[in-house]
Amino acid sequence: MRRVRVNGFVCKDTKDVKADDFFLAANLDKPRDTTVSKVGSNVTLINVMRIPGLNTLGISLARIDYAPQGENPPHTHPHATEILTVLEGTLYVGFVTSNQNNVNKLFTKTLNKGDVFVFPEGLIHFQFNPHPDKPAVALAALSSQNPGAITIANAVFGSKPPISDDVLAKAFQVEKKTVDWLQAQFWGDN
Amino acid sequence: MRRVRVNGFVCKDTKDVKADDFFLAANLDKPRDTTVSKVGSNVTLINVMRIPGLNTLGISLARIDYAPQGENPPHTHPHATEILTVLEGTLYVGFVTSNQNNVNKLFTKTLNKGDVFVFPEGLIHFQFNPHPDKPAVALAALSSQNPGAITIANAVFGSKPPISDDVLAKAFQVEKKTVDWLQAQFWGDN
Amino acid sequence: MRRVRVNGFVCKDTKDVKADDFFLAANLDKPRDTTVSKVGSNVTLINVMRIPGLNTLGISLARIDYAPQGENPPHTHPHATEILTVLEGTLYVGFVTSNQNNVNKLFTKTLNKGDVFVFPEGLIHFQFNPHPDKPAVALAALSSQNPGAITIANAVFGSKPPISDDVLAKAFQVEKKTVDWLQAQFWGDN
Amino acid sequence: MRRVRVNGFVCKDTKDVKADDFFLAANLDKPRDTTVSKVGSNVTLINVMRIPGLNTLGISLARIDYAPQGENPPHTHPHATEILTVLEGTLYVGFVTSNQNNVNKLFTKTLNKGDVFVFPEGLIHFQFNPHPDKPAVALAALSSQNPGAITIANAVFGSKPPISDDVLAKAFQVEKKTVDWLQAQFWGDN
Amino acid sequence: MRRVRVNGFVCKDTKDVKADDFFLAANLDKPRDTTVSKVGSNVTLINVMRIPGLNTLGISLARIDYAPQGENPPHTHPHATEILTVLEGTLYVGFVTSNQNNVNKLFTKTLNKGDVFVFPEGLIHFQFNPHPDKPAVALAALSSQNPGAITIANAVFGSKPPISDDVLAKAFQVEKKTVDWLQAQFWGDN
Amino acid sequence: MRRVRVNGFVCKDTKDVKADDFFLAANLDKPRDTTVSKVGSNVTLINVMRIPGLNTLGISLARIDYAPQGENPPHTHPHATEILTVLEGTLYVGFVTSNQNNVNKLFTKTLNKGDVFVFPEGLIHFQFNPHPDKPAVALAALSSQNPGAITIANAVFGSKPPISDDVLAKAFQVEKKTVDWLQAQFWGDN
Repeated sequence: MRRVRVNGFVCKDTKDVKADDFFLAANLDKPRDTTVSKVGSNVTLINVMRIPGLNTLGISLARIDYAPQGENPPHTHPHATEILTVLEGTLYVGFVTSNQNNVNKLFTKTLNKGDVFVFPEGLIHFQFNPHPDKPAVALAALSSQNPGAITIANAVFGSKPPISDDVLAKAFQVEKKTVDWLQAQFWGDN
Repeated sequence: MRRVRVNGFVCKDTKDVKADDFFLAANLDKPRDTTVSKVGSNVTLINVMRIPGLNTLGISLARIDYAPQGENPPHTHPHATEILTVLEGTLYVGFVTSNQNNVNKLFTKTLNKGDVFVFPEGLIHFQFNPHPDKPAVALAALSSQNPGAITIANAVFGSKPPISDDVLAKAFQVEKKTVDWLQAQFWGDN
Repeated sequence: MRRVRVNGFVCKDTKDVKADDFFLAANLDKPRDTTVSKVGSNVTLINVMRIPGLNTLGISLARIDYAPQGENPPHTHPHATEILTVLEGTLYVGFVTSNQNNVNKLFTKTLNKGDVFVFPEGLIHFQFNPHPDKPAVALAALSSQNPGAITIANAVFGSKPPISDDVLAKAFQVEKKTVDWLQAQFWGDN
Repeated sequence: MRRVRVNGFVCKDTKDVKADDFFLAANLDKPRDTTVSKVGSNVTLINVMRIPGLNTLGISLARIDYAPQGENPPHTHPHATEILTVLEGTLYVGFVTSNQNNVNKLFTKTLNKGDVFVFPEGLIHFQFNPHPDKPAVALAALSSQNPGAITIANAVFGSKPPISDDVLAKAFQVEKKTVDWLQAQFWGDN
Repeated sequence: MRRVRVNGFVCKDTKDVKADDFFLAANLDKPRDTTVSKVGSNVTLINVMRIPGLNTLGISLARIDYAPQGENPPHTHPHATEILTVLEGTLYVGFVTSNQNNVNKLFTKTLNKGDVFVFPEGLIHFQFNPHPDKPAVALAALSSQNPGAITIANAVFGSKPPISDDVLAKAFQVEKKTVDWLQAQFWGDN
Repeated sequence: MRRVRVNGFVCKDTKDVKADDFFLAANLDKPRDTTVSKVGSNVTLINVMRIPGLNTLGISLARIDYAPQGENPPHTHPHATEILTVLEGTLYVGFVTSNQNNVNKLFTKTLNKGDVFVFPEGLIHFQFNPHPDKPAVALAALSSQNPGAITIANAVFGSKPPISDDVLAKAFQVEKKTVDWLQAQFWGDN
């Protein structure tokens, strides 16, 4: 049987809705493995794909684990602002403005446990755990039930198929062989 | 000098914006005093009034501390959905639907540490710590930079000036003296 | 045959749309029976379920009949502002603000025939006919094609299943037996 | 002292808001004079300019009086859907679709007292009282706190300064002298 | 097989999306035949019906060709603002305000190649090529993926079925026989 | 005298509005100098800063000139979709999806004169003129009156102050000295 979808997700008949549609035993209190990525972080996103009742409600939640010197690398959320608080450890965080007002101005802060920071919608931002041997953990909320993420390095150098090295060499003002080498790093990596 | 406001909050000139406009040393990791309210809870809301950079961005964050058998009593957020995760302890949570589809149907769940629950925008909801002697803590995000809260009992029985006891006696199907007694409990309490 | 729905309502092919999709012989000029409810009122709501062409258009209309000393008891519309004019009789009306600016401040007015009043979106409000033996009638418009209503007393004390009396006793600062008695009044009543 | 405006209207400090900001003694029960216009109608619009508390709330109300054979002539509301009910008399009403789906298809209905009709946002619509000697009255709600109206004949033939008769002669496929004559009818008339 | 639609258009599974869904070989550089309409213009609209990937994205593009003394006659876009630049020739353009602030005030400008003009959402506007023997071309963008157009003369005098001549005679302050004659011009013309 | 601003731009009193507020003699038909940037392109954006009447209307227009083998390098518009048509020459264009559905999938197309392409809101996209000695020109419309642009290479490697090379080395999986070298290329370049 086919089912009608809103925003790409299946809509239940209201009489079939139950408390479990708004619930997830997410174990957000448990550490995640940060060795799974080359950048030393692991994002556990609780979005509409995991809690169907979030559909159309415009919010989601994420736990982010950072290895020592691990990071959530520069990325954007096309349709979501992020507010983050540090649960464990320390984070060096920042975002870069667009070309409208303050051309590519970087705003940074070092956050300790209990601090709160905001990354405005659409801007490139990152979090980095500067500590040489202690992990860090953050809890973040996003203003979309399905916030995408565009990880800059991966989207630019790891797209499938790859972006022409003519385009990237000129954009990054490097030689094509440098672009080719960068693309090789991200190939098969997404 | 007068300053221009958007949504009631002062707008800075973009050239004067700084990282601190997106930051708060909120100590969200520290327990709050839950004896300050009769219901045994304490909500620390990080909204646009505390982080000016949140203005227009549609999100906020809150830490909620619950005494043993304390509660965040039935309330609504007129313009915000809430997503909550339990940091410590156990919570019995629920919301009631409107009269549209499932007339006043109650959805509840008992949440343990790391679990996640969603309270859809505008619906009456609550969280209760059932444990006789352990506190509980939750972190919640709301889909508004300035989510109001309407605490039902206080708004209905504790408004200033009070709602006519004719109105409330009929609404709650009790005698006026019961209404008068309830109003006395909430007077001076908000 | 299955039909595609938008906002839960069936969408017609535009070539099949006809004037009747925007029309209702609603008899809004005729008095309704106000003895059907314990609170002495009767709301006739003309929403998208009754006029399919209203879908997505963000407006609806209602006739409200009030018995002498009848009321439309404290309730909220989660997603709609209401503007009301008195067609017959007199109404004592009011709304209570949220905890943001004026904590639980009550705004009231006595309305005569031809007067207009506005109840802002999401706030608890009511209308009461203070006259001992004359009925009243109002016409109201709401800024949603499907405005839900949350009748406070019914949602809090009449939900199915009932909210735990632990939660309600603490919220309303009464004994559990008072809660149990109130819940009994609303059981089977919605 | 200068005052800050939102949507062009003055915003009060929330502490200065009072019930009268949401109220108007509009006498909507009283007949209006329909001889003031050449088309035999009189629209009493209760919008944000008359009730300041309506600002940003997206709704307004109107009483419309029609002389015998009077009309509310073809017009559009650029940003509002209208829902209307007949209080007195009979109305022949209609709207014309755009060129998207049903090219310029006319939908009409004859409405009696208590009937309800919807005019979707942006479409050209009208109401006409066909009765030779009885007036009619309608109450209408619009999905904007400040719904403009573009009365077609007046905007096209009565603009100040007038639209070039080259443009109008070709658009209406008439001779320029016919346009000039039409423009003369509307001059000084708005 | 039935397919789910959003805003009336078929949604593809994201895995089936391809570059062609965002592309059209539209030949927008090629002149169009302006003799096909009585008003001497031809609008080539690139909307969601021609580029499926535009769905929900809120923008479209149009090339408009004008014969010498041809025009895009007075019309409205119910849900879109238009920004236009002249590619070839000269255009006399204008729009008329609603009755809110500047009652039916006409704003006009003569545009040369490379000039830009804005027609705000919902207002009646037109473009006219005043040159006796040179064509003109414009490129326009609209803030909707499916902007409707209501051509005033055609909607008012050419609707199917026709609007009652009682209504139009009064609205345009002409005799019924003039209305009938106008309606005859537009019959079968849309 | 201080002036009230909406979205950061000055609002005129409606009685002072004139046709020039909706007009710009932009010379969009004239070639721009593409040697001013290292990437061989020149974007002439007609936004609300240049046409005040565009405020709140959600649309803007741009002419883009490309030198032979010049490009509009990978960038995002945080709040705008772009629709583009080629006026002169040939363009190789593309965008990369986010991590939601098709992980970092690249969609490309070669566009000739008169072709149209859409770049959905928030996604990284580019245009490149592959021709060795002919320039290219495009006209683009964006669904915002003030679409920002985040040029990826400049925001990541040319922010002021620079992003820590610890963060960028890990993100791009290169050595710090490579990052330092890249940052040197963009320093003083924005």
